[in-house]
Amino acid sequence: MQAIVQTEEKVTASLELQEVPVPTLKPGEVLVEVKAAGVNRADLLQTQGNYPVPAGASEILGLECAGVIVDAGDTGQTVGQEVACLLTGGGYAQYVAVPEGQLMPIPEGYSFVEAASIVEVACTVWSNIGMLAGLQKEDTFLIHGGAGGIGTFAIQMGKALGVTVAVTAGSTEKLKTCKNLGADILINYKEEDFAEVLKNKADVILDIIGAKYLSQNVKAMAKDAHMVVIGMQGGVKGELNLGHLLAKRGTISATALRGRDEADKARIVSSTVENIWPLLQSKEITPHIDHTLPLAEAAAALQKIQDGTITGKLVLAV
Amino acid sequence: MQAIVQTEEKVTASLELQEVPVPTLKPGEVLVEVKAAGVNRADLLQTQGNYPVPAGASEILGLECAGVIVDAGDTGQTVGQEVACLLTGGGYAQYVAVPEGQLMPIPEGYSFVEAASIVEVACTVWSNIGMLAGLQKEDTFLIHGGAGGIGTFAIQMGKALGVTVAVTAGSTEKLKTCKNLGADILINYKEEDFAEVLKNKADVILDIIGAKYLSQNVKAMAKDAHMVVIGMQGGVKGELNLGHLLAKRGTISATALRGRDEADKARIVSSTVENIWPLLQSKEITPHIDHTLPLAEAAAALQKIQDGTITGKLVLAV
Repeated sequence: MQAIVQTEEKVTASLELQEVPVPTLKPGEVLVEVKAAGVNRADLLQTQGNYPVPAGASEILGLECAGVIVDAGDTGQTVGQEVACLLTGGGYAQYVAVPEGQLMPIPEGYSFVEAASIVEVACTVWSNIGMLAGLQKEDTFLIHGGAGGIGTFAIQMGKALGVTVAVTAGSTEKLKTCKNLGADILINYKEEDFAEVLKNKADVILDIIGAKYLSQNVKAMAKDAHMVVIGMQGGVKGELNLGHLLAKRGTISATALRGRDEADKARIVSSTVENIWPLLQSKEITPHIDHTLPLAEAAAALQKIQDGTITGKLVLAV
Repeated sequence: MQAIVQTEEKVTASLELQEVPVPTLKPGEVLVEVKAAGVNRADLLQTQGNYPVPAGASEILGLECAGVIVDAGDTGQTVGQEVACLLTGGGYAQYVAVPEGQLMPIPEGYSFVEAASIVEVACTVWSNIGMLAGLQKEDTFLIHGGAGGIGTFAIQMGKALGVTVAVTAGSTEKLKTCKNLGADILINYKEEDFAEVLKNKADVILDIIGAKYLSQNVKAMAKDAHMVVIGMQGGVKGELNLGHLLAKRGTISATALRGRDEADKARIVSSTVENIWPLLQSKEITPHIDHTLPLAEAAAALQKIQDGTITGKLVLAV
């Protein structure tokens, strides 16, 4: 089969389409013919050597896809079934092996490209904000990087759940995107200190910045707030004032989806389908796709992520 | 009535017994004649000016007591009923006003002194370790300061729930106390680095040290671990490496009981009585009282807390 292979270590531009063997199925896995693969920042980090591949996972990039089951292996799945898949790797290819618990139905009326664009983000946002932080209707939900792939999804999810959504972004244009998706409080981080605007107000925070925002996030926290760090674009080492955190009775979690074991992923996939798929079906959440590129242009796609010029998701059509 | 009054700001030694007015009841409160009042480190911090009294709370020290209802106010409680009470202040006195939701039954066969010694610690440990961190049977539970009031209770609770208990303490004698209570892994922090001993092993951590142990606690965390900071004897400002925390999918909370609102306290009291009172009744958890002093010797009691010579709880008999 054809797949994207990195020919030079730590060089994103060295990604190219090559002929590689079709994956062999392990017990409980199905083989999916990939029709579309979502592009994530984690893929970029992996090409740069900053996102180690979990033991036993495919070395091929790609954490989500949509396609068709072509071999059901030892599972009870149906060949020919169209599915969306949460992957531990391997999506940038013609075929990928997928554990049965990581298969999701394609929401009715969704194209493969649309379906491939929402798996990772839906599972990431729901597992952190719904399952872990327990977002409640009366909450104020602060989303950093509101115009990105995670942000645009999280805004819509927050509004569908009836909360007040606050976002940070770095340009008027990006904030306009957030506003159009329903965000209530718009903060241009280049012009305003979000911690001043939201001081003691944010009940749940979804953070992709890390160390650089740590103290400010604690300042923005309301009583009993829960902040979840899922990215560290602003570094890893920050100062934490536990006295300030205790005054808020605050909680800080840092998580990633990829390293979780299969049982944990299956639990997340199942809860995400239960809670988020109805919102996709009712169009309360719609995929926000910047554009689609052919699989062969994976390097160019990751360069766009690096440049930060994308609003919404990039998808590779296979 | 007689109560302990601080005559000089920030001077613990200036505590003395004085005549003050009996508290007036607010709606939903009962008046309790105090028979015994528990002594807590927070009381010491309050005398030093480092633990601000929440708005509306009594200025008198004392976060827990046991006694007899002498005025039921507008509640349906019974005059003459013996009760243990979680207080927001006011326990170092002959009488204290208590919101109805903060009354607990006295476990059968318990003296007032024993009952007064377990309220704050039971609510603190259960609310953090049971309700917040969700300690599970297969977990390894790390308790810092195993020989203190919190520690001795937490060890017994951990063992009653069937978990592996690890403790740190600063002397062989203190570790012996922990061992006698059932602790499985004993670490003298003066001789060993607990983070090396427990690297990647601790599922739940109960911390009273704060900043000084922050990095080591993260190192000791297992996957999906939850650390709860309830004291900061080792300072408030620490460096947090979010990359290390994310590698564990770790969660850090910092909490205090006192600042919670009445509804929240009632919720905690109710869950603690439901989950912990049976363990007190069955003697799986027994109060560990260092000794009892008369109310008039409150200053001396707090000095002993300051000196760190206490194993278990100090109680004032009124």
